[in-house]
Amino acid sequence: MNKPALTIYKIGGGIIDDTAELIKFLELLAQTTGLKILVHGGGKGASTMMRELGLTPQLINGRRVTDAATLDIVTMFYAGKTNKQVVAELQRLGVNALGLSGADGNVIQGIKRPVKDVDYGFVGDLTPASVNATFIQQLVTANLTPVLCPIIHDGHGQLLNTNADTIASAVAVALADFYEVTLHYCFEKNGVLRDVNDDNSVIQEINSSSYAELKQQGIIADGMLPKLENAFAALHQGVSRVIIGHALHIQRSLHTVLCLN
Amino acid sequence: MNKPALTIYKIGGGIIDDTAELIKFLELLAQTTGLKILVHGGGKGASTMMRELGLTPQLINGRRVTDAATLDIVTMFYAGKTNKQVVAELQRLGVNALGLSGADGNVIQGIKRPVKDVDYGFVGDLTPASVNATFIQQLVTANLTPVLCPIIHDGHGQLLNTNADTIASAVAVALADFYEVTLHYCFEKNGVLRDVNDDNSVIQEINSSSYAELKQQGIIADGMLPKLENAFAALHQGVSRVIIGHALHIQRSLHTVLCLN
Repeated sequence: MNKPALTIYKIGGGIIDDTAELIKFLELLAQTTGLKILVHGGGKGASTMMRELGLTPQLINGRRVTDAATLDIVTMFYAGKTNKQVVAELQRLGVNALGLSGADGNVIQGIKRPVKDVDYGFVGDLTPASVNATFIQQLVTANLTPVLCPIIHDGHGQLLNTNADTIASAVAVALADFYEVTLHYCFEKNGVLRDVNDDNSVIQEINSSSYAELKQQGIIADGMLPKLENAFAALHQGVSRVIIGHALHIQRSLHTVLCLN
Repeated sequence: MNKPALTIYKIGGGIIDDTAELIKFLELLAQTTGLKILVHGGGKGASTMMRELGLTPQLINGRRVTDAATLDIVTMFYAGKTNKQVVAELQRLGVNALGLSGADGNVIQGIKRPVKDVDYGFVGDLTPASVNATFIQQLVTANLTPVLCPIIHDGHGQLLNTNADTIASAVAVALADFYEVTLHYCFEKNGVLRDVNDDNSVIQEINSSSYAELKQQGIIADGMLPKLENAFAALHQGVSRVIIGHALHIQRSLHTVLCLN
């Protein structure tokens, strides 16, 4: 039996910080047909507010060190302000959105990252059992569009700050048993670029063997490398395809499609 | 056919501001059997943060005047921090809680309060059609415990700040068609008191006729008056009973029960 198609869209800080762009994206999203889930990241608002309150945001390797005061503020921003504004806007557009942190309906339960070289504080890592796929399936079947923020819980009453890319790929993998899943990463570029300075140099398709070549040639490097590593890991775990493209072109075919072969 | 019983618990700012008391309350709540919904208010955290950010909280007749900056902060506090902490704690206690603003699943849609003598800004009023009773029923039937915060939406993309007492009674009335509803207001006193200075002077039961007498005698006055007016309005609209009592005594019989006769 064919599985129904479902797309998981992930948007990051760049678009969340620009309300006009965010609304444009949500309008495009509302026009897409088919089952969907939205995962959103954080944006700069939390850091700005921390500075206004006399706190100093601290990032190591791009990950936020999250002490108790920082956790309060990212929870307020991600699960409160951003999540509810996105949900209210989608409701305006006729999409029956439901905002979720990982604690809500126990949808994503993780573990506090163990302290090794760095103590990231209240940062959560996911395990293979983290995602409550059954509950997400119930919501999607009821025609709801889950809107996930990057705050999860540990099942012992502790909220944890997590990376939205990680949530998007974990949810994609967990739902692959039930759906033909497309994982669509939306960002500020048109896709994976052959030349980072030329936004028209989009590589339209990357499979396992061309990926190896592109890495060897140094065309895929820096920030794009972990993104693609995660993407291929998701493909190897049952996700049908991964798309990387511009947030305001989600309905156009200008983007990079990743597949196994 | 008998309708299943459902209790709507409402907690206010006093208990939310005291984490130890809040956890005690949630532990008691987790021990209650039967279907339930929790509605929580705000607390002082939002005002404290506003002052730290150089903003001036403004209340008129106990209602917060909500400009755009205030709305952002109350949304962060109520729908973000408080709601998610309560949900994570209930999950720890084995209650499958699901936090909701009014925008989530379009569960409560209101209208921006019209400007008369006072412009309250982004404050929402409820209408008889505000509550999406069908959706709440679906959640409750799926063994979820909805946790509602006092942020709703207008259906046109605008979030609105609302009073938690109002939400609790509107939800109670809307669900009375499907359930035998008890509306349980939890606060810092043991119930409606005959003598405000004696916490043991709880009036155990008030019906329509004794209510009229108590008002006439001036025993029910001030802040208790609007609470009881709302309570009797809910009873007249199908709610089975209203309980007013201490948040840390929800399983004891020391409280005031309101009923029509």
